[in-house]
Amino acid sequence: MSDFIHENFMLQTATAERLYHEHANKQPIIDYHCHLDPKQIAEDHRFRSITELWLGGDHYKWRLLRTNGVDEKYITGDASDWEKFEKWAETVPYTMRNPMYHWVHLELKRVFGIDTLLKPETAREIYDKANEMLRQPEFSARGLMRRFGVEVVCTTDDPIDSLQYHEQIKESGFEIKVLPTWRPDKSMAVESGNVFRDYLRQLEEACGVKIGNVSDYLKAIRQRHDYFQSHGCKLADHGINNFFATPSTEDEITAIFNKVVIEEKELSPEEVLKFKSRMLHENALLNHEKGWVQQYHYGAIRNNNSRMFNELGPDTGYDSINDGTDVAATMARFFNNLEKEDKLAKSIIYNLNPNDNYLVATMIGNFQDGSVPGKIQFGSGWWFLDQKDGMEDQMNVLSTQGMLSRFVGMLTDSRSFVSYIRHEYFRRILCNLIGNDVENGLLPESEIEFLGEMVENICYNNARDYFGF
Amino acid sequence: MSDFIHENFMLQTATAERLYHEHANKQPIIDYHCHLDPKQIAEDHRFRSITELWLGGDHYKWRLLRTNGVDEKYITGDASDWEKFEKWAETVPYTMRNPMYHWVHLELKRVFGIDTLLKPETAREIYDKANEMLRQPEFSARGLMRRFGVEVVCTTDDPIDSLQYHEQIKESGFEIKVLPTWRPDKSMAVESGNVFRDYLRQLEEACGVKIGNVSDYLKAIRQRHDYFQSHGCKLADHGINNFFATPSTEDEITAIFNKVVIEEKELSPEEVLKFKSRMLHENALLNHEKGWVQQYHYGAIRNNNSRMFNELGPDTGYDSINDGTDVAATMARFFNNLEKEDKLAKSIIYNLNPNDNYLVATMIGNFQDGSVPGKIQFGSGWWFLDQKDGMEDQMNVLSTQGMLSRFVGMLTDSRSFVSYIRHEYFRRILCNLIGNDVENGLLPESEIEFLGEMVENICYNNARDYFGF
Amino acid sequence: MSDFIHENFMLQTATAERLYHEHANKQPIIDYHCHLDPKQIAEDHRFRSITELWLGGDHYKWRLLRTNGVDEKYITGDASDWEKFEKWAETVPYTMRNPMYHWVHLELKRVFGIDTLLKPETAREIYDKANEMLRQPEFSARGLMRRFGVEVVCTTDDPIDSLQYHEQIKESGFEIKVLPTWRPDKSMAVESGNVFRDYLRQLEEACGVKIGNVSDYLKAIRQRHDYFQSHGCKLADHGINNFFATPSTEDEITAIFNKVVIEEKELSPEEVLKFKSRMLHENALLNHEKGWVQQYHYGAIRNNNSRMFNELGPDTGYDSINDGTDVAATMARFFNNLEKEDKLAKSIIYNLNPNDNYLVATMIGNFQDGSVPGKIQFGSGWWFLDQKDGMEDQMNVLSTQGMLSRFVGMLTDSRSFVSYIRHEYFRRILCNLIGNDVENGLLPESEIEFLGEMVENICYNNARDYFGF
Repeated sequence: MSDFIHENFMLQTATAERLYHEHANKQPIIDYHCHLDPKQIAEDHRFRSITELWLGGDHYKWRLLRTNGVDEKYITGDASDWEKFEKWAETVPYTMRNPMYHWVHLELKRVFGIDTLLKPETAREIYDKANEMLRQPEFSARGLMRRFGVEVVCTTDDPIDSLQYHEQIKESGFEIKVLPTWRPDKSMAVESGNVFRDYLRQLEEACGVKIGNVSDYLKAIRQRHDYFQSHGCKLADHGINNFFATPSTEDEITAIFNKVVIEEKELSPEEVLKFKSRMLHENALLNHEKGWVQQYHYGAIRNNNSRMFNELGPDTGYDSINDGTDVAATMARFFNNLEKEDKLAKSIIYNLNPNDNYLVATMIGNFQDGSVPGKIQFGSGWWFLDQKDGMEDQMNVLSTQGMLSRFVGMLTDSRSFVSYIRHEYFRRILCNLIGNDVENGLLPESEIEFLGEMVENICYNNARDYFGF
Repeated sequence: MSDFIHENFMLQTATAERLYHEHANKQPIIDYHCHLDPKQIAEDHRFRSITELWLGGDHYKWRLLRTNGVDEKYITGDASDWEKFEKWAETVPYTMRNPMYHWVHLELKRVFGIDTLLKPETAREIYDKANEMLRQPEFSARGLMRRFGVEVVCTTDDPIDSLQYHEQIKESGFEIKVLPTWRPDKSMAVESGNVFRDYLRQLEEACGVKIGNVSDYLKAIRQRHDYFQSHGCKLADHGINNFFATPSTEDEITAIFNKVVIEEKELSPEEVLKFKSRMLHENALLNHEKGWVQQYHYGAIRNNNSRMFNELGPDTGYDSINDGTDVAATMARFFNNLEKEDKLAKSIIYNLNPNDNYLVATMIGNFQDGSVPGKIQFGSGWWFLDQKDGMEDQMNVLSTQGMLSRFVGMLTDSRSFVSYIRHEYFRRILCNLIGNDVENGLLPESEIEFLGEMVENICYNNARDYFGF
Repeated sequence: MSDFIHENFMLQTATAERLYHEHANKQPIIDYHCHLDPKQIAEDHRFRSITELWLGGDHYKWRLLRTNGVDEKYITGDASDWEKFEKWAETVPYTMRNPMYHWVHLELKRVFGIDTLLKPETAREIYDKANEMLRQPEFSARGLMRRFGVEVVCTTDDPIDSLQYHEQIKESGFEIKVLPTWRPDKSMAVESGNVFRDYLRQLEEACGVKIGNVSDYLKAIRQRHDYFQSHGCKLADHGINNFFATPSTEDEITAIFNKVVIEEKELSPEEVLKFKSRMLHENALLNHEKGWVQQYHYGAIRNNNSRMFNELGPDTGYDSINDGTDVAATMARFFNNLEKEDKLAKSIIYNLNPNDNYLVATMIGNFQDGSVPGKIQFGSGWWFLDQKDGMEDQMNVLSTQGMLSRFVGMLTDSRSFVSYIRHEYFRRILCNLIGNDVENGLLPESEIEFLGEMVENICYNNARDYFGF
């Protein structure tokens, strides 16, 4: 037995404890951005083992295993579930000071009620106990979601997705809202040639129309956007290297489309940029029309290890943080192009390089128009920044440059049904930050009730109101 | 009644308290960089209401109001003073963790003796009390300056300014020195075409000479520089995107000047850069000749919202933090060009993007020549960085890379007569930093007297000696 | 007498004290990267005075003296040893909050047993006492190394170095291993024209072969690499502006080599980049073949003050921190080119601009291949970052993005025989970090034994195993 994940884990002050237990902890979870597989929810997936649940697709853990000198056989290879878990158990103590050490033990405690620290000596016992519990029906995909008090989940979906699983989930009467998110990255990936042309064929199929030119293409995109809207979609999401805001003419866009689609030629980087800029803008107009919130994630450099990319494909742990050039100017131009037409939807910007924290936190101030509180949001610490230091930095910069009180708060960005502990993690960090400020006299103790409401808002109410769930 | 802004506000240790109360707090204020309107000082302006005083031109507050979802009518629009103040009072609690929450209550306490926290319930009472006090003569522009123990103030002035208000202030026998600062940004803004040509006509008028070529122009600039010198000017200030250090020939400069002024043609970006580089250098030579201190502020991206720029003009809350390219190389080249001629004046560099803190703090070390302590300065946290985290970061980096002890300290950079509380804010933060170090054994407790002197120096003596007031 | 450098200096918690005294402090020192002069070790150099020891070549101290307004005469000029020391003693109190203030007093205490704080009043006493001790044989170069419990030292050496002093040291039976490090910067400095051609002549001499073309040149490099190997070399080191990864053909490389060596023409920046990219890659292949560890130091901008460069030459205190462009993409391409051939040696990346901390800490994760723990390392805070904040930032980012537990830890990077106190400094900071985490409940107190081992590993075992000493 360990007392590591105790009631006041991460809460350093009495104020933090009070804010957490009386305010944060009571809030339901709105997970407005994740990568859960809707099929698994529709079919109420059961997990064969904690190895599947934990190590099946989690590239965070894979990277740590590799760093610890573990052979790929035990990571993505053909070792048995137990062998893989054993290697993971050996690795876990070496992750101390990495957020993984906290997440692992939060998940053991909240999902399985296990208080024991994971290490070689405890591996077998934990493995057996967890696997036994996973055999219970309440540990299915839906069971896990219920366990965490989730109210709304937004998955991440391609425009050509039929959304059949979302329909199935809805029809099943599942009490947790599972909504699609419009993620059209592939629909504008003109740099990928064949892949893009393939995509267009799938888009034709999804729409039941022929796409012969750029105007057909734009109509098809709109048709799918409407389709998502009819399925309860309220968010768009864009994974971009950087913001795209290169101007172009209608004729240029027509020519670029024809070049890649009809002539099947490779585009120049300039042409790619023009096309993507146009499409990012077009999507933003659609989002504005529907009253959706649009999200922009930028700053990753992906697939850096080509040997492993060839073996394992994307999203296997070979991505990292990029640096940028002209970041502010391009971002400003993108938003200004929308703002000057009065067509800027609510927007959330997520940067991956923490160097941009100040840049983003001050950029959003340029486009707050007084129509709703916190219309343009600086998104919560993303990916590599989704840890205590990263989240504190994001919240501190947002606080000094804008309004923490209007922040829509946490999301998991996860493929896992047990990642909801990240909301708890975030909430403890938030309460701790505010608690320290009160303790240090930087916030007035007399306003503790207002601070409690503020915590509730950041944990739940702000997101509910902002997204309109 | 609240005890938020108490005697030991922000001071976490006994050492910090001692340093603040026995050393920092006793020092007069030298505000060597601000944007006060000399006319208001000359005429000893009286404020119609706290709304005028607080919300009349403060784009920090405007941004927060917009972020809080307040309509522009209540910000820069035609709402009444009370209506605007009411919206501000509603907004203030939502600014918790933003430095504004501290500044508002420091100003209420130090200016009006008001201890009540501003929020909807207290708005009317505070509004009435503050307005009543503003009707007293000691709350005039000069009265407010006296209240804070100000000794010297340097305003920010254009080369063509007649400095009549500075003359008027001096003649009036006002006991606080109000000196002009040479801010020649417009005089080198060749990219602005018509505006630059207009400027030249005003410069001709100010000098009483005809400007037919670049040599006349340079002579006119020098004449105005002499004029500022004769009015007690001791500082220059440059607001620049980045440092300019592109080499050019005399013939090129002549041609560029003729192209924009005589041929009235638009310059290429390269030509603009060459001209500005030359003028930044020329100004630096003049500053060196006079023994002035030159300041460089870089790193903003301005007027990002063109719809609002068209409505409200510049400096209305639509600026943010820029990223840069080749920042170090260009900065080094600029200073080296002066240093190698042995004509580098005392200089202060202010960066807006905190990513450059280390870059600047190490750059200044390249040009310290042993002639005076701290000849090249890393300026105090500017604009978006003028808050606790920003100032602590600046002082910590300056400390590890150079000498905090030789720092010339705080300035307000403000348009407001009540912003002097920023000096108090800075001093508390400074004492707190040092107090923590002593508490943690990082500085020797036995040297508390030296540390006290060091605090006094940073708060007052260093600036007095460095600028030669 | 002062109690500044006491037993628990920098240790804020009981856990930190325990970790330091029971684990860190007992470890021998492996200083795997330094710039000690092997001649001084071979000849067991004796120091004429503390001025020679401290101020003879330490550009950190020179920068501080200049910042404090001290004339160059007392820095690199012809003032007497005492005069220089006196100026230094006047300056030291003004360095409070700079790491120098800690280093000075750690060195006084650990080397000379002096507890007195250095300041004008104590200067003479300290000067005399230290000088008297330096006259004792146990204060020779080797004596100082023994005093600190050093086990291995790796110097930094040019490929053309005869390594005669390393041979001499080995033959003398000195019990501390002194190994050479392969530092081939000059051997690829094709941008320097004459200097490079001179270098080739020296290389010819060292190899006893004629270098007529690029293939001869590559053979000569390999021959020297073998020679270093035969002298116990286990590390390579590259001082680079940025990573170089511009592709080129064999023909291009041949042409570039001929152009600079035979035609004696200046190369274009593109040609320089191609050549350096090729040579950085070639060196990496050699390092992989030998099983060495390769180090990359990037991010400095050097010799910024040309007046002083002309007077004093390089490495005299006129360098600072650079910013970069396309840092991640170039770094990724460089490592990927090796990884995809399966020829990536163990590597350590050191950045000088702390903005790259996250970039580097996530980049290394892309190339961990599970063959050994921590194969690719994020190097300890370098140069301007080798101070408490810099080291904490590096360790915190490494912790959140990878595995602190697999970190190879500290090096001095120093030219001084008393800089070993930096290892103590690092260890105290490390133990303090971990102690704070335990105190704050972020690490489980129950795992204190594991944490103790982890500290021992970072201080000693990891380096020993990683480098294979």
